[in-house]
Amino acid sequence: MSSRFTFNATDAHIIELSKYRQIAFPKNYRKPVQIGIDIGGSLAKVVWYSQNTNSYAATGGRLNFTKFETENIDKCIEFLKEIIKKDNETINLPHRVLKATGGGAHKFNKLLNEELNVIVETEDEMECLITGLNFLVHKIPYEVFTYSESEAEPMVFEEKVIDEEELYPYILVNIGSGVSIIKVTEDGKLERIGGSSLGGGTLWGLLSLLTSAQTFDEMLELSKKGKNENVDMLVGDIYGEDYSKIGLKSSTIASSCGKIFKKKPEERKEFKEEDISRSLLYMISNNLSQIAYLMAQLHQVKRIYFGGCFIRGHPVIMNSLSFGIRFWSKGTIKALFLRHEGYLGALGAFLKHHGNIQEQELLGFSENFTKAERINTTAINAVGLIDIVPKLTYFPLILSDEYHPDTFDLSDPELQKYWIDTFDKNLHKMVDMALSWLHTHFLTNTDNSKSFEDIYRKHLQVLRREPNAYGPLSVRSLLILREQCLHEMGFGDIFEHVKQEEKRTALETLPNLLKKIDALPENEKLSVLIDNVLAGNMFDWGANEVHNMLQKGELNFDSAKIKVKKSEKYFNLNEFRESLELNQYHKAVIFVDNSGADIVLGIIPFARYLLSHNIDVILAANSLPCVNDVTYNDLISIIEQVTSFDKPINDAYNIYGKLMVYETGSGSPCLDLRNVSCDLAEACENVDLVIIEGMGRAMHTNFHAKFICDSLKLAVFKNASVAKTLGGNMYDGICLFEKGEKIIGIAKSKRSNTFNEILEAGRFSFSC
Amino acid sequence: MSSRFTFNATDAHIIELSKYRQIAFPKNYRKPVQIGIDIGGSLAKVVWYSQNTNSYAATGGRLNFTKFETENIDKCIEFLKEIIKKDNETINLPHRVLKATGGGAHKFNKLLNEELNVIVETEDEMECLITGLNFLVHKIPYEVFTYSESEAEPMVFEEKVIDEEELYPYILVNIGSGVSIIKVTEDGKLERIGGSSLGGGTLWGLLSLLTSAQTFDEMLELSKKGKNENVDMLVGDIYGEDYSKIGLKSSTIASSCGKIFKKKPEERKEFKEEDISRSLLYMISNNLSQIAYLMAQLHQVKRIYFGGCFIRGHPVIMNSLSFGIRFWSKGTIKALFLRHEGYLGALGAFLKHHGNIQEQELLGFSENFTKAERINTTAINAVGLIDIVPKLTYFPLILSDEYHPDTFDLSDPELQKYWIDTFDKNLHKMVDMALSWLHTHFLTNTDNSKSFEDIYRKHLQVLRREPNAYGPLSVRSLLILREQCLHEMGFGDIFEHVKQEEKRTALETLPNLLKKIDALPENEKLSVLIDNVLAGNMFDWGANEVHNMLQKGELNFDSAKIKVKKSEKYFNLNEFRESLELNQYHKAVIFVDNSGADIVLGIIPFARYLLSHNIDVILAANSLPCVNDVTYNDLISIIEQVTSFDKPINDAYNIYGKLMVYETGSGSPCLDLRNVSCDLAEACENVDLVIIEGMGRAMHTNFHAKFICDSLKLAVFKNASVAKTLGGNMYDGICLFEKGEKIIGIAKSKRSNTFNEILEAGRFSFSC
Repeated sequence: MSSRFTFNATDAHIIELSKYRQIAFPKNYRKPVQIGIDIGGSLAKVVWYSQNTNSYAATGGRLNFTKFETENIDKCIEFLKEIIKKDNETINLPHRVLKATGGGAHKFNKLLNEELNVIVETEDEMECLITGLNFLVHKIPYEVFTYSESEAEPMVFEEKVIDEEELYPYILVNIGSGVSIIKVTEDGKLERIGGSSLGGGTLWGLLSLLTSAQTFDEMLELSKKGKNENVDMLVGDIYGEDYSKIGLKSSTIASSCGKIFKKKPEERKEFKEEDISRSLLYMISNNLSQIAYLMAQLHQVKRIYFGGCFIRGHPVIMNSLSFGIRFWSKGTIKALFLRHEGYLGALGAFLKHHGNIQEQELLGFSENFTKAERINTTAINAVGLIDIVPKLTYFPLILSDEYHPDTFDLSDPELQKYWIDTFDKNLHKMVDMALSWLHTHFLTNTDNSKSFEDIYRKHLQVLRREPNAYGPLSVRSLLILREQCLHEMGFGDIFEHVKQEEKRTALETLPNLLKKIDALPENEKLSVLIDNVLAGNMFDWGANEVHNMLQKGELNFDSAKIKVKKSEKYFNLNEFRESLELNQYHKAVIFVDNSGADIVLGIIPFARYLLSHNIDVILAANSLPCVNDVTYNDLISIIEQVTSFDKPINDAYNIYGKLMVYETGSGSPCLDLRNVSCDLAEACENVDLVIIEGMGRAMHTNFHAKFICDSLKLAVFKNASVAKTLGGNMYDGICLFEKGEKIIGIAKSKRSNTFNEILEAGRFSFSC
Repeated sequence: MSSRFTFNATDAHIIELSKYRQIAFPKNYRKPVQIGIDIGGSLAKVVWYSQNTNSYAATGGRLNFTKFETENIDKCIEFLKEIIKKDNETINLPHRVLKATGGGAHKFNKLLNEELNVIVETEDEMECLITGLNFLVHKIPYEVFTYSESEAEPMVFEEKVIDEEELYPYILVNIGSGVSIIKVTEDGKLERIGGSSLGGGTLWGLLSLLTSAQTFDEMLELSKKGKNENVDMLVGDIYGEDYSKIGLKSSTIASSCGKIFKKKPEERKEFKEEDISRSLLYMISNNLSQIAYLMAQLHQVKRIYFGGCFIRGHPVIMNSLSFGIRFWSKGTIKALFLRHEGYLGALGAFLKHHGNIQEQELLGFSENFTKAERINTTAINAVGLIDIVPKLTYFPLILSDEYHPDTFDLSDPELQKYWIDTFDKNLHKMVDMALSWLHTHFLTNTDNSKSFEDIYRKHLQVLRREPNAYGPLSVRSLLILREQCLHEMGFGDIFEHVKQEEKRTALETLPNLLKKIDALPENEKLSVLIDNVLAGNMFDWGANEVHNMLQKGELNFDSAKIKVKKSEKYFNLNEFRESLELNQYHKAVIFVDNSGADIVLGIIPFARYLLSHNIDVILAANSLPCVNDVTYNDLISIIEQVTSFDKPINDAYNIYGKLMVYETGSGSPCLDLRNVSCDLAEACENVDLVIIEGMGRAMHTNFHAKFICDSLKLAVFKNASVAKTLGGNMYDGICLFEKGEKIIGIAKSKRSNTFNEILEAGRFSFSC
């Protein structure tokens, strides 16, 4: 088994984000390749750090994952040699250190040292497993999930923030060739409390003798088709019924493989290999879950994590382990799985390079699925790369700990299909834009756009099979995945050209528009400004219906104003006006959406109006490009141009600092308020009006978000399904004003306990 | 699999032992056949009661054991039909009840009811298992043992009397096709606390697919030859060394069968089936012991019994389970095994016929190995029949709870070999006697003596392989087994003729001898009487050296007196004389030995002397015939003849009741003072002098016995090995007087707690 990733050391320019220089790995910051390796009985797992070579990555670092068969340790060594050799081209380290764990760290110590010319520092296996697990649980969104096929939605991610007190004590059942069970208590103390020799090696070993299948996947495929009751002796086979007195159902397995010996020798050949496969899979899984449960009981532990390469994200294994834990615990405990289950030890070894926890604590970590390890397999939980990103934080004005960005629960298979289809159907539009971007940049290698199309479509295929493979499916996640794929394939701001053109036109129109507005009677202004915001928001290349009109040049600002109707259900502008007239607000934040008419003709005049009411205004724009959304850099440039001809804006921005521009830390058309840039969060501490604009930010996400201060959501239904679901019509504009629920004390104190440690997932994170 | 026992309903006369009529099943007492059946997933186990048809059995009842494959339930039904049919010939029960348990009790309920025309009463499986286990633990000597091949003597029987408080709580791990784990607490409450589907069915099923072996025994044979390290991945294979930090040795199995998958597919055929067998055996055993240990920890239980047909007394299985428990518990807990391990449920079901516990409590149960189930197998722990016998009890004058009848510890393999050889070499003498007995009784079927020879020799072969197969090997056990085999083959009192002849001669001599003694000066009498006892004790057909002399007519009373020398080491007659002269004794018991000169010329004059010192005398003789030992019936007849010519004996026996004859409850040349008849025990409560006579009773056994009153041991070394071991010469007579250690209070109170419940093993018991 070799890696699907290739180490790519081609140089590339890295966007400088000066604000994060102190916490992210900045452009000129160069870390040598760092490697953590966990050599088990069967597999050698490798985690290594690489400098981020992608132009659109915000930071300099990335963690990569791969594995080799221990039997072929030479291949693994060749691979590591290559990594180190490439790194040596730029940094020559006299004493390069390899952090190694697992039994092979001892066994192959000398070999690694000699072949790689590195100092092999052996780390304790159990410690590495737990270091890796703790890192994943705390840093990676949607790492932990439960799995049960008896539920409509088998895979359920653990979303609730877990307090440290709730987390500890826990046990980790690490299933490799053999099994180790480790208990971890609050003080970080860990103890190997047991193990079992009945592990992955046992199942694969027996099945390789008993069936024609010779790879893990073949065996798992076989077991999916099998019926264990043809091989196993069930309680019903013995009792002819339930043994209800002691709670054994007739379908309970009384004896694994118990039907085989009862047959005459000559008939034993007739057992089907798929039935045997399923029987043995159940045997190993049930047994492990029983031992794990007993250990958990004995140590009074409620949380049982399963890790190790045995699981490999396979539904049948996870379901079986889950079933076991449910069965033995009578439903009181759920088995917890980890998406990076196989890499705990290697990740732990890698992290030992960073003995200094503070260094880790300064960074955020976010998963990037563009090159998910299992994109070609049937596995349901994919392992992506982990990008090292600036630390993000919770938006301080969210009311509830139960905040969840996504408006729509895509657990309905029909809805899942609809959205995946939608993204699939319209993929070609993105490809066209990407091609044209290549063209504009005089790049002739059109393979990249093909790769982008291929890779995104492959992900969509994975999601068709297992919608929650990358965390819970949402429109937001589909959008982010698309952006990630674009960036991973080397595309920059593919709407650059469109945005430039629209900006130019809009800025030409703006002076006149401002004059008209200033001339309106005071009591009519607000209504017109809101109409303009909604009309401007029509200029959305990300909305498929609108994209066509825009491409054909069928839309201008005036036609947009006619097209957009006021929503009957979500339009309470008068309430907002009343609050505004009472001079209740001192500082507003506006999460802005598209470039062009939207920002220039819609938002800037509206912000100018708020400023005129003595309200400070923060404009919060994306850090990274995404469709035709206005980026922080775009916005700075626009505002600077506006200051040149509009005094109120110039005064507010340049003289009084009452108009401010911040970046959100995001690169998504949606808005996850659990992860905004720390600077924005800080600037918003005393905000008393939150305004969110656009379909992605105020409909797909945050439609139900509640704030501790008043809020206003402005958007247009540009998707029929969304309109229908929320009870609107196509091209209805919403103006949804909601009073804040001011229970700051509770909301804040509760959050501050946990969000810093738990929820600082990265800017590319589409989940947390 | 069919039974090795055949149900034998041929009628025969049953010895009437009037004294036990009330507690044993007397001659005319007729119980219908009672059957308990436990139908598991693979095996149907049957326990049934049968009327004892053997002439020399003391009582009317016997429990028999057999099993069938559940797959062939028809064979089992045929067998039961036969039993019931035979029984119907004598007792016609309108509503015959079959007690059934196990899953099949439900599944085959209708079938059993229709085919056997019985009322099938289904009993709860877990309850039956525990009822059976408790019965065995409490009633059957040497039922429970530990096993560890790392000890010089792997099989160690649990001899210490276990208080109820120590016994409970315990868990039973019942390993059949699948596994049930049951916890039993003091109040008799039982709970199935868990189980496992990895049981016997799993091992046999997998091995039947993976090896050419197709029977249990073939598989176990294979596994004995195998090396699991060729198949299993050991800690050392991964680490290259111990993983000492967490206490894993390099030889610990990290992954069962973990080396298989690492090989290339084409090389996997090369794994040896014996190695795979051993690996899987370890896998199942280690896993079960781990689960059992975890359950024991969880429930704070110290005693773990393993039962069920998986174990089948096979050393490799027991050793592996034991090793597992030792390993997981770090040596704090030992696995406990049961000789009747496979019959717990069936026995429990059988006992449900006797809902009335009082009825059970009145009886003693003793194992009889003559038809041990496994005489032809390599199994080490044989399961015999269980005879229902009168209740026996502890001899009340024993000093210590640590009393053990056997003088010689036969754990030395050389000593074991010597005694087995001795019994083997001299077997022909018994066969000759048996033939001559057949002849005297005009019985011409000499096959019986051949069968006796065959069966005893077979047992000796089993014991050569596994000396402790039937409980700890001792001279006593070899002697009893020989007697049991004789009786089982239908032989009665084969020394009847010899005894009659010797009695006649001795009685002719007695009057004259008594006159001579009476004429002696008072201070010379005792010495002469003791000389006579020792000379008389030479007339022992059970002692091989003497047997030859006796057969050739080379020995008479006078020549015997010359032959017997006083032991230098063990002859303190003067001390006894001093105590006697102080008139310290009021009641003596003499455990007598041989018929003929021994009892008539040795013991009777000595008893007469004690009577003359105003000491009441109890003569305690065997209940059942055994070599030329005087039986209770023999002794009654002798005393009655003596009363006809000797006034002191007549007065003491017939008028004042100062001379009494009791039976011991035994049929052995040895004496186990933990099991004497209740009447004798009661009569001895106020005895202040215990006299034990003979090599079997005072040398092979009881040589080291200590009493709370004074005691006198009288015997002659008639075996060179015994003489050498104890430090004497051949034909040395010993007269060993020991002062009692009068700590009655403690000794009695301690005993009364336990001996009634625990140690009432039967008269044929050679162990307890």
